[in-house]
Amino acid sequence: MENIFYNANHSPIGAYASFTLGFPGSSGGPGMERTGPADTNVYIGVERREGGSYESLPFFKGGEDEGKRYDVEKKDKEEQTGYFDKIQAVEITRDFRVCSDTWMAGDLTFTLYNQVESVPNPQESQTDGNEEQMKITILPAVIGELTIDNRGCKRTRRAFFGFDEVEARYGMRRFISSEMKGAGQGGAFAVFSNSPCNAAVGFCPECILSEDDRDNWEFNLGKTALLIFDVPADTKVTFPLAVCFYHGAQATYGIETKYYYTNYFSKIEEVAAFALEKFDVIKSRCLAANERFNRSDFTEEQRFMLWHAIKSYYNSSQFLINGDGEPVWVINEGEFRMMNTMDLTVDQLFFEMKMNPWTVKNELDFYLHHYSYEDQCGLTFCHDMGVANIFTREGKSSYEKCGLTDCFSYMSHEQLVNWLCCALVYIRQSGDLQWGEERKGIIIKCFESMLNRDHPVPEKRNGVMSIDSTKTKGGAEITTYDSLDVSLGQARNNIYLAGKCWAAYIGLEEYFAAGGEEKLAVQAAGQAAGCAETIADHLNENGYIPAVMDEDNDSRIIPAIEGLVFPYVLGRKDVLKEDGKYGRYIKALKKHFVTIMESGICLFEDGGWKLSSTSGNSWLSKIYLCEFVAAAILGFDREIYMKDADKAHVRWLTHPEHSYWCWSDQIVNGIISASKYYPRGVTSILWMEG
Amino acid sequence: MENIFYNANHSPIGAYASFTLGFPGSSGGPGMERTGPADTNVYIGVERREGGSYESLPFFKGGEDEGKRYDVEKKDKEEQTGYFDKIQAVEITRDFRVCSDTWMAGDLTFTLYNQVESVPNPQESQTDGNEEQMKITILPAVIGELTIDNRGCKRTRRAFFGFDEVEARYGMRRFISSEMKGAGQGGAFAVFSNSPCNAAVGFCPECILSEDDRDNWEFNLGKTALLIFDVPADTKVTFPLAVCFYHGAQATYGIETKYYYTNYFSKIEEVAAFALEKFDVIKSRCLAANERFNRSDFTEEQRFMLWHAIKSYYNSSQFLINGDGEPVWVINEGEFRMMNTMDLTVDQLFFEMKMNPWTVKNELDFYLHHYSYEDQCGLTFCHDMGVANIFTREGKSSYEKCGLTDCFSYMSHEQLVNWLCCALVYIRQSGDLQWGEERKGIIIKCFESMLNRDHPVPEKRNGVMSIDSTKTKGGAEITTYDSLDVSLGQARNNIYLAGKCWAAYIGLEEYFAAGGEEKLAVQAAGQAAGCAETIADHLNENGYIPAVMDEDNDSRIIPAIEGLVFPYVLGRKDVLKEDGKYGRYIKALKKHFVTIMESGICLFEDGGWKLSSTSGNSWLSKIYLCEFVAAAILGFDREIYMKDADKAHVRWLTHPEHSYWCWSDQIVNGIISASKYYPRGVTSILWMEG
Repeated sequence: MENIFYNANHSPIGAYASFTLGFPGSSGGPGMERTGPADTNVYIGVERREGGSYESLPFFKGGEDEGKRYDVEKKDKEEQTGYFDKIQAVEITRDFRVCSDTWMAGDLTFTLYNQVESVPNPQESQTDGNEEQMKITILPAVIGELTIDNRGCKRTRRAFFGFDEVEARYGMRRFISSEMKGAGQGGAFAVFSNSPCNAAVGFCPECILSEDDRDNWEFNLGKTALLIFDVPADTKVTFPLAVCFYHGAQATYGIETKYYYTNYFSKIEEVAAFALEKFDVIKSRCLAANERFNRSDFTEEQRFMLWHAIKSYYNSSQFLINGDGEPVWVINEGEFRMMNTMDLTVDQLFFEMKMNPWTVKNELDFYLHHYSYEDQCGLTFCHDMGVANIFTREGKSSYEKCGLTDCFSYMSHEQLVNWLCCALVYIRQSGDLQWGEERKGIIIKCFESMLNRDHPVPEKRNGVMSIDSTKTKGGAEITTYDSLDVSLGQARNNIYLAGKCWAAYIGLEEYFAAGGEEKLAVQAAGQAAGCAETIADHLNENGYIPAVMDEDNDSRIIPAIEGLVFPYVLGRKDVLKEDGKYGRYIKALKKHFVTIMESGICLFEDGGWKLSSTSGNSWLSKIYLCEFVAAAILGFDREIYMKDADKAHVRWLTHPEHSYWCWSDQIVNGIISASKYYPRGVTSILWMEG
Repeated sequence: MENIFYNANHSPIGAYASFTLGFPGSSGGPGMERTGPADTNVYIGVERREGGSYESLPFFKGGEDEGKRYDVEKKDKEEQTGYFDKIQAVEITRDFRVCSDTWMAGDLTFTLYNQVESVPNPQESQTDGNEEQMKITILPAVIGELTIDNRGCKRTRRAFFGFDEVEARYGMRRFISSEMKGAGQGGAFAVFSNSPCNAAVGFCPECILSEDDRDNWEFNLGKTALLIFDVPADTKVTFPLAVCFYHGAQATYGIETKYYYTNYFSKIEEVAAFALEKFDVIKSRCLAANERFNRSDFTEEQRFMLWHAIKSYYNSSQFLINGDGEPVWVINEGEFRMMNTMDLTVDQLFFEMKMNPWTVKNELDFYLHHYSYEDQCGLTFCHDMGVANIFTREGKSSYEKCGLTDCFSYMSHEQLVNWLCCALVYIRQSGDLQWGEERKGIIIKCFESMLNRDHPVPEKRNGVMSIDSTKTKGGAEITTYDSLDVSLGQARNNIYLAGKCWAAYIGLEEYFAAGGEEKLAVQAAGQAAGCAETIADHLNENGYIPAVMDEDNDSRIIPAIEGLVFPYVLGRKDVLKEDGKYGRYIKALKKHFVTIMESGICLFEDGGWKLSSTSGNSWLSKIYLCEFVAAAILGFDREIYMKDADKAHVRWLTHPEHSYWCWSDQIVNGIISASKYYPRGVTSILWMEG
C-alpha cells in the first residue's frame, strides 16, 4: 500500500455510528448519523522514554488556545514545541483487517476491533442464548486495545486515548465509577476502560498532561477528554478499551422509531459496562471473522477493498424498532443519507443474504407496505424511504421529482426490477417458502407491471423497458446510475437495465413454475428469451452492444453484464452457459466485454475500470460486481482483466487526499467525487462465491 | 440608531432556544442550546409586483448549488440575477421592542413576538387556570406575522417564510395536516401556519419557487424548507406564524432532567397547534408587555438596551424538571454555557425577583444541596453547576481550578457573598419567611464563613476579605471579573468585593435582628461598620480609593459602588444616606465616583464607561448596575453621567460587525469581545426602579 493514512470506519452493527480513523489531522473520531467523518482530533499516544514530553499518532491538528475565549486580553500561549508532538509517519505501520485496525509506532500499539457478525432475526423465537447473542452483536460499541511496551525503561510512563468535542450541544465529561472510567461527550460518545486509569477534561491534551494537580483534570469547560494510563517501569501493558455510542431518544421521524439496542441499554455507561464485560468474547469473534474474511485465494487488493467496504457498510447500518415493537433495518446511503435506497439494497443483497437474510425480507416488506405505488403500468417501488432520519410519507421517496430526464427523475422500472430480484433471491436462498407463497399475488402484480413497462400491447413486447412512468409527467425514467450520462443514466432501452430485466424474468419463470403457475412461468420465459434476443441482436459489427438500443447512442458500458449475477445466485447456472438456452446472449455479452475492455474505452489510463466509454465517472461497487460476473460467470481471467485494475482501484481509495472519505463509490478519473462514506462496496462479498 | 441590522434573540421562556434575526447574511435562524447564532439562512420575502421574481430580507447568503453533490459532472448553474434578490438595506425599517421585532420593506411587514411573562411557581397548588397559564408561558415557540400589502396589484403574489438546515443529524421536512402546515428540520425546529399555505422542501429558495410542478415541493433532499403563501390580487393579508422548538429527550446529564414543557407537549406539532390556537392571547400579552417596558422616562438608548438584554436573557433560560418531578431553573451563561453561574445569578436577581421570585429560591436551594462545599473557612458555593447541559459532580464547578491566581481560579468568597445577597433579597422581597426561617442555620454558617475569610482571629478583622481559600492550593481567589486585571480580578482586599461584603453584613444584621438573633445582628453590624470604615479610610488625597487596598495597587474602578444596590433593594435606604450611619463611606464613594469619571480614567474616548482605569475590558451588565447605583442611590445626574455614555454603549451593541452576537457583555475598547450572546444585561431592569 502506497499510503497507509486513509480513513476507515470502525462501526458497531446497526448503530449508524463510527469511530473513523486513519486520515491525518482533525479528520475522524466518534460520529453518529453523519454525512462524513466527525472531523475532530483524536489523541492516541504515550510519554517519551526520557519523560516529560509526549508523542501522539498524527490524528489531530494543533489548535488555538481555547482559554483565550475566557480571558480576551490574554497573550498567545507559547509554542510548546517538543512537548506534545505528532509521531512521524515513517515510524508508523498499520495492520488493516476486516474486524481490526492496528497502528504500531515504537513502544505504542493501538487496535480497534469492529464486529462483523450475523444479526439474529429478532422475530424468531427468542431463547436466553439468542438474547445474549443479539445483545453482543448489536452492542453500540467498538472495543480497542492500547499496548505500551515500557520494558527497559526505568520510569512510569503516561499513555492516553481520547478525543475533542464532536457535536455542539453537550459538553465534554468524565465518567467515574468504581468499575470503570470514561471520557467523552454528553451521553452519546465516550471511551471507557476498566483498567486502572484516570479520566480528564481540559482545553487541550497538552493542558491536561501538563497539569501539576490532578484535581484540575476535572475542568469541564475543556473541549478535550482523555483516558490517562500509567505504565509502570519495565513492563509491557495492554489496556482494554470500549469506544461507545448511544442515542436513546426517538431516532427517526415520519415513522417513529428508536434504536433496537435501546431494548438492552438505557445509557452509554451500560453499553460500556457490557462491552468491557464481554471484551474477550468480542475480541475472539473479531479475530475469527478476520480469519473467515482473510481469503488466501484473493489478491492483497481484493482483501483490502472487501474489508474496507464492509467497514463502511456497517457505518451506514441502522437497526431500529418501531412503536409496535417491530424491527426496522435501514442501510443509509453514505454521505447522501437516503434510507434503504432500493437500488443500493439490490447490490447489498448479496452481503445481507450471507450475513442476515431476515433483513432483506424486512426491507422488502417495508417497501411493500409503505413505499410502493402504482402508475399507469401498475405496481412499483420508491427510490428510497426517506433521508437523514426522516421517513417520507407513504408512497413517496425523498429523491424522485417529476418533469426531469436526468438526476432526481423517477426510477420506477429500475426499482421494480430491483425489488423483484431481491425477493426472488431471498425466497430461493433463505428457503423461506412461506413468505414466497404469501407474496405471490404481489409478485404477479410486479410481473404484470414489468410487462406493461415493456409494452402494453403484448405483441409489441421485446423484453426491454420502453415505457416511462406517468410519474415523470413527460420526463424520462433514469437508473441507479443517476449521475452518469445517457449511456447508463437513461432507463428506456438501456442494456444495463435490460440485462436485469432478463434476470428477473429468469427468476420469475422458476418462481412461477415452482408455485404451480405454469402459464405465468411460460410467459416469463418468453419475456426472458425476447429480452436476450433483443440485446444479442444489437451486437454490432464492431463487437459491442450500444448502451441504449435504437436511440443513436454509441456508448459502451461494462454493466451490460451486470444482470448475469442474479441467475448465478439463484442457482440457475444453466442459463449462463454459452451452450445453453441463452447461449447467443451470453456469447454476445462475452464478445461485448472483450471488445470494450480497452484503454480509453472502458479502461482508464491507470488501468482501472471505466463503466462507460462516455463518462469519466466510474463506481467501485459496480466494478466489483461486474468483476465477479466477468470472472466467475463469464470465465475471464482475473490475472488479465482484474489484477492490475484492482491496483488502480486501491490507489483510488488510498489517494493521499481523498481517502479522507473512507470507502467511497463514485470515482471521477481516479478521484473520489461523490457517493462518499458509502455502504455499497459490499458487492465485493460476491468474490467469496468464486 | 445608526445600524438597524444587529442580531437579536427571539426566545420562548425556558426553552434555551432562539430564533435569532437581524444581522445580515447567514447569521441567524432557529437555534437551541447554542454558544451563538444558528448561522443559517432565513428567507422572508415576497414576489415582486410585476411577478415572476422575488425579494427577501437580507438574512441569507447565496449558496452553492447543492445538487452538484449528487451529479458531480453537472455544470455550475447559471447566475439567477434578478430572480431571487435581497431587499436593499435602505428600503428596510425596523421597529424593535421588548416583545416584538418588526421589519418593514415595501409591501412586506414581518414581526416576531416573544413573550416576557412571569413563570408561575410550579410548586404552588395548581388550579386549571394555573396550568393553562404555565402552558402558555413556557410554550416553546415564538409567534409571528407576515403581512403582504397586495392592494393595487392585479396579480396573486407568492410570499414565503422559512430557513435552511441548522443541525446535521436530521433532514428538512414538511408537516402537513388539515389544520396547519409546517416547514422545518427533524423534530426540533419548524415554522407553522394555520392560514392556507403550502410547505416546500428543496435545495434552495430559488429551486422551490421556480418549480413548475408543486409535486416537486416534496423534495426531501433539500436543505431549504419554506412555508409558501398566495396573496390574492388587491388584498392586504396577514398570515399568523408559529416558530416552534422541541427537545423531548433527556436534556441534561450528571443530573438527569427534561424540559418542563415536555409535561404539556409530546412533539413539535403539538407545540405548533397550541401556539396557533392561542395566537391572539399570546400576541396580546406581548403587546401589553411592550407597553409595560416602554418607559417614557427612559432615553431611547435605555429602552433599547433593556429590551435587547431581556431578549438575550430568555435565550439562555432553561426550565427543566428532574426525575423526581422537581422544577430546575437554569440560566445558561451565554456563549460559555455554564449553568446558573452564581456570579451571574446575583446580577440577574433583580430581574428574576421582578418576574418569578420562585426561580431565585430554586437556584439557591439547588446550590445549597448540590453545589456547596467547605474549605478551611467554612461553607461556600461553587462558581457554577456545570456547563453545556452537563451538571458537574456535587460540590464541584466546571470552572474552578487550583494553583491559579487569575482566570479559572476559585471564587469562594465572591460566591459566598453572592449566595447570601440573593438569599437575603429573596427573603425580604418575596415575603417567603418560612424559607428564611428554614435556612437560618445555613445563613449563620455563611456568616461564620464570611467572618473567617475576613480573619480567623476576631480582633484582626476589618470587614474585608483577606484569606484565600485552601481550595486554591496556594493560588489566589478571583472575582466575577475574571478576565480583567488585578484591579477587579483579585478578590483579596478588593474594594468591589468589599462593597458587596458590606452589603451582605447590612442585610444579615436585619435578618438576624428579625429572627431574634440579637448577638449575631450586632456582630454583623460591627462587620458592616468595620468594612465601611476600612474602605473609607482608603480614600486617598487624589480623591479615589485604590481598587486593591494595601497592595500597591493604584487602579480606579467604578464597581466600588456596586454593592450599594443591595441595601437599596433590601429597603435599607437609611444606610445609603450621606448623613446616615454609613455617611462617611457613602461620601467617600461619591467622591471616588466623581474623581474617576474622567476621560482616560473610567471613561473611554467615545464616552462609554470604563470599569477599571487599568483595563480596556468593560462589562455592560455591570455598567448598567453601576449606572443605577450612581443615579438612583448616589444621586448623580443621568444627563451628565449617563446620557452620552449610553449612546456609546448602544454603538457598542449595534456595531456593524460585532452586533452579530446579540446582547453581549464584555466590550474591549468598543468591540464585543467575550461573554457574547449573554443573559446578564438584565441588570438594566434596575432602571425601572428609579
